[in-house]
Amino acid sequence: MYSKDIEDILHKKHISIGEKVLLERAEESFEGVLMPRPDAGDNNILVVKLSNGYNLGLDFRSISSIKRVGTSAETFSFPKIKMRARTGLKTVKLLYTGGTIGSRVDYATGGVYMLTKPEELLYDVPEMADIANIDVEHLMSVASEDMTYTEWQVMARKSAEAFNSGASGVIISHGTDTLHFSSAALSFMLQDLPGPVVLVGAQRSSDRGSSDAFMNLICSAHIAAHSDIAEVGTCMHASSSDDYCAFIRGTKVRKLHTSARDAFKPVNGAPIAKVNTEGNIRHLSPYTKAGKSRKVSLREGYEPRVAMLYMYPNSDSSLIDHYLDKGYKGLIIASTGLGHIPISASHPEYNWLQGVKDAVASGMVVGMTSQCLFGRVSGTVYRYGRMITDAGAIYCEDMMPEVAYVKLGWLLGNYGRKDAEKMLAANLLGEITPRTEAEWHDEV
Amino acid sequence: MYSKDIEDILHKKHISIGEKVLLERAEESFEGVLMPRPDAGDNNILVVKLSNGYNLGLDFRSISSIKRVGTSAETFSFPKIKMRARTGLKTVKLLYTGGTIGSRVDYATGGVYMLTKPEELLYDVPEMADIANIDVEHLMSVASEDMTYTEWQVMARKSAEAFNSGASGVIISHGTDTLHFSSAALSFMLQDLPGPVVLVGAQRSSDRGSSDAFMNLICSAHIAAHSDIAEVGTCMHASSSDDYCAFIRGTKVRKLHTSARDAFKPVNGAPIAKVNTEGNIRHLSPYTKAGKSRKVSLREGYEPRVAMLYMYPNSDSSLIDHYLDKGYKGLIIASTGLGHIPISASHPEYNWLQGVKDAVASGMVVGMTSQCLFGRVSGTVYRYGRMITDAGAIYCEDMMPEVAYVKLGWLLGNYGRKDAEKMLAANLLGEITPRTEAEWHDEV
Repeated sequence: MYSKDIEDILHKKHISIGEKVLLERAEESFEGVLMPRPDAGDNNILVVKLSNGYNLGLDFRSISSIKRVGTSAETFSFPKIKMRARTGLKTVKLLYTGGTIGSRVDYATGGVYMLTKPEELLYDVPEMADIANIDVEHLMSVASEDMTYTEWQVMARKSAEAFNSGASGVIISHGTDTLHFSSAALSFMLQDLPGPVVLVGAQRSSDRGSSDAFMNLICSAHIAAHSDIAEVGTCMHASSSDDYCAFIRGTKVRKLHTSARDAFKPVNGAPIAKVNTEGNIRHLSPYTKAGKSRKVSLREGYEPRVAMLYMYPNSDSSLIDHYLDKGYKGLIIASTGLGHIPISASHPEYNWLQGVKDAVASGMVVGMTSQCLFGRVSGTVYRYGRMITDAGAIYCEDMMPEVAYVKLGWLLGNYGRKDAEKMLAANLLGEITPRTEAEWHDEV
Repeated sequence: MYSKDIEDILHKKHISIGEKVLLERAEESFEGVLMPRPDAGDNNILVVKLSNGYNLGLDFRSISSIKRVGTSAETFSFPKIKMRARTGLKTVKLLYTGGTIGSRVDYATGGVYMLTKPEELLYDVPEMADIANIDVEHLMSVASEDMTYTEWQVMARKSAEAFNSGASGVIISHGTDTLHFSSAALSFMLQDLPGPVVLVGAQRSSDRGSSDAFMNLICSAHIAAHSDIAEVGTCMHASSSDDYCAFIRGTKVRKLHTSARDAFKPVNGAPIAKVNTEGNIRHLSPYTKAGKSRKVSLREGYEPRVAMLYMYPNSDSSLIDHYLDKGYKGLIIASTGLGHIPISASHPEYNWLQGVKDAVASGMVVGMTSQCLFGRVSGTVYRYGRMITDAGAIYCEDMMPEVAYVKLGWLLGNYGRKDAEKMLAANLLGEITPRTEAEWHDEV
C-alpha cells in the first residue's frame, strides 16, 4: 500500500496500479508501469517498471508531476485475475517459504527484503493464472540458510495435505542456498506421491531485469500442473540463455554457482525433463509416473544429531570425538577421491581411522562419500578403502555428501540403527545410480 | 627383480626384459612384452604387457613353456635409455611422492601397491627420454590423503633446490586425492619461479589399459621442459577422450570426479594451456612468463592451526568454539550461496553468527567462501552478508574453500595477523579473479 498522499493523488488523477505513467522531477522524467507497493518499506516510494524490465523506486516527495500515458488495457493487470479460480484448470498448491524468489529490492534503502504477502509473488507473473489455479499459502518467511529439519517437516506435511485435498501438484518457492538440501529431505519424507513436488527458487530477485524468477515460476507451474512425474525435484534455469528450465530429481541436484541463473545442476545423473515457458516438456531420463489414486506416504521423522564432516590435509580428526561426546547418532564423511581418509602412522594427529573405529564401536552409523561430488566411492580398490570398510564405515555409492547426510538423518529418525545401516547404501528412490557393468569391470 | 629360477631360465633362453615372449600353460597361451618385475610382491610372478595394454601377472610355476617371439629392437627398451643424459636436452627434475601414478596392481594379490623404486615410473613411458633429461628423485611414498603441510614444505624446498641447480622445470608425481591442495600450497610457497612446477597424477595405475599415467607424464614433461610458463599448476587429462591435457593454475584447480581421467577441472578460470603428447602447447589464458635469471623465493612457513568448516542445515555452530578452545588462529567457512550462515533467532542452536563474532574477537582470522565452488561470494548483496561482514569476517571473492584454507594457513605461517587479514582477499598470484564491470553492476 502506498501512503495516503500518494493514494489521494492517484485517485484524483484516475491512475490505477498497472497503468503506464510518466513521472517528472527536476530535469528528469521516467516512463513505466506503476507497480503495487509491497507492504514492507517506505510507502512514500513510488515503484515503476521501466521498459528494460528493471523496477525503479522514486521518492514521491521529489516528483513534480505524474500523469497517465497508457490505459490499463495496454499494460498489465494485477492479482485479481490470478486469484480467481478458472474452471477447467488444474489446481496447484504454491507453498511460499521465503528466499530471493520472494524478495524485492527496497529502492529506498538499497537492501533486499522479503515479501510479507506471498500473493505478491504472482504480481509479476500473470501467465501462471493461465496454466493452473495457483493456490498460494504463506508457510513461512525463512532465508534458506536458516532452514533446519523442522522446516523440512512443515513443508513435507503441507505438501501431503495439498495432495490429499486434490492438488495436481505442489510448488514450493524457496531460497536457493539450501534448496538442494530441502529437495533431498522432501524426497525421503514424501513417498508414493500422486504428482510432482517442484522446488523453485530464483538467483536474482524478481524486480531485477535479469531475474530468473518469472521463467522458473512459469516452468514450475507447467511441471506441477501438466507433467506425469510423481517425484520431488527442482525446476530452474538449465543454461545461461533463457531458453528452458530443467526438472532435476531432488536427490541428484546441487547448487554449483553462487550467482549464475543456471546454478542448479544434476550431479551423477541427467535431469528428468526439460521444460520451457510454452509448457513443452521433454523427458530426458526415467522417472516415477504419477498415479492419481495414490496416497502420499508421509514419513517426516528426522534425527538432527547427524553430522557431515569434511576431511582435508591437516584436518582435525578429534571432531569425531566431539560428536561422540555430544551423543550424535550418525556421521557422513566427505572424504577425498574414492572414499579415503588419512591413515598414515607417521602423522597420528591427523589419522582419522581410529576415530571411525571408535564411532562405529559406540553405535554411530558412519557413511563414506566423496568431496569430488561427481563419481562413485569404493571401499575395495585401494588398501585404505578396505581398512575403512573393515572399520565398519559404509560406502555410499554415488550419493553426494549432502544427500547422504540428509538421508542418514531421515533414516535414523524413522528406523532403527541396523535398518538405517542397511538402507544407507541401498537405492530407495533414485538417490543412488545402479552400477553399470563397465564400472564393475573398471575396478580391476 | 625376478626370482633366481626365473632369471636362470631367461638367461638360458637369451630372453631379455622388453622382448616379446610367448608363454604357455595347460590350455592357455599368452603373448606379450616381458616386463621388469617391481621389487615389491612375489618375485615368482612373471609380468607381460599384452597388446591391449593391460599387464598380466602369471605364476611362473604354472608356466610350461616360455619362448622369445620378437627381438628387443621390435619392442620396448627399458630404463637404461631414460637414465642416460642426452646432450641438447633440457633437464627436468621429477620429484616422486607416491600415489596411484606410482602404483601397480600386484597380480599375485590383486591389491594395489606403491613402487619402491621411483625409476620404475618411467619404465612404461620411454617417450619421456626424448623430451628431456628426466632426473628422478624419490622424495617420499605417501598416499595423497595422508599428505600434510610438512610434505608440502618438503616439495617446496626440493622444487626450489631443483631450479637453483639449473633444472628448466619440475614435475611432481603425486596422488590425486589432495593434489589440488598441494598445488595451491606450492603456488604460495614458491614465488618468483624461473620455470614451471607441474603436479601430475593418474586416476588409474599405469599397468591398466585405461591408464592416464602415460599421457599425463608425457604432457607434463613437455610443459616442464618446453613451455615458458613460470607457475605452479596441474597437468592431466582434459577430456574423456585421450586427446590432450590441460595445464591449470594450482590455485584454480579441483578434483571433481572420483574416477574419471578428466577429473581435474578449472574452477572460476580457464586452463593456462592445453598440451598434447606431440608437445603442441596452446595457451588459453594469461600466465606469468618464465625468466631464467629469476631466483625462486621460497616461503615455506605454514600455520597448521587453521580449519575449514562446512556449514549445512542443522550444522553445529559449536565447532567454532571447539577450534577456539584448541587455540586455532584461522577459520575458513564453506558457507552457502553468496556467503551465508544461519543467523535466525528462531533456531539459536544453529546460529553461526555469534561464533563468528567470538572467533574474530579472540583474534582468529575468519574467511567466508562458498560451497557452491563456482562463482564469487559477496558480503554486500543481502542483509545477512552485511551482518557477517560487520562481525569481522572476510569475504574471499572467488577462491574455492580449499584454496582459501591453504592460503590462510600459509599467510599465518609467514605474516602477522593484520597482514594476513589484508592479504586473504587480495589477489597475490592469480588465486582471485578480478571483478568485471558486469559483476559490479550485477550487484544492484
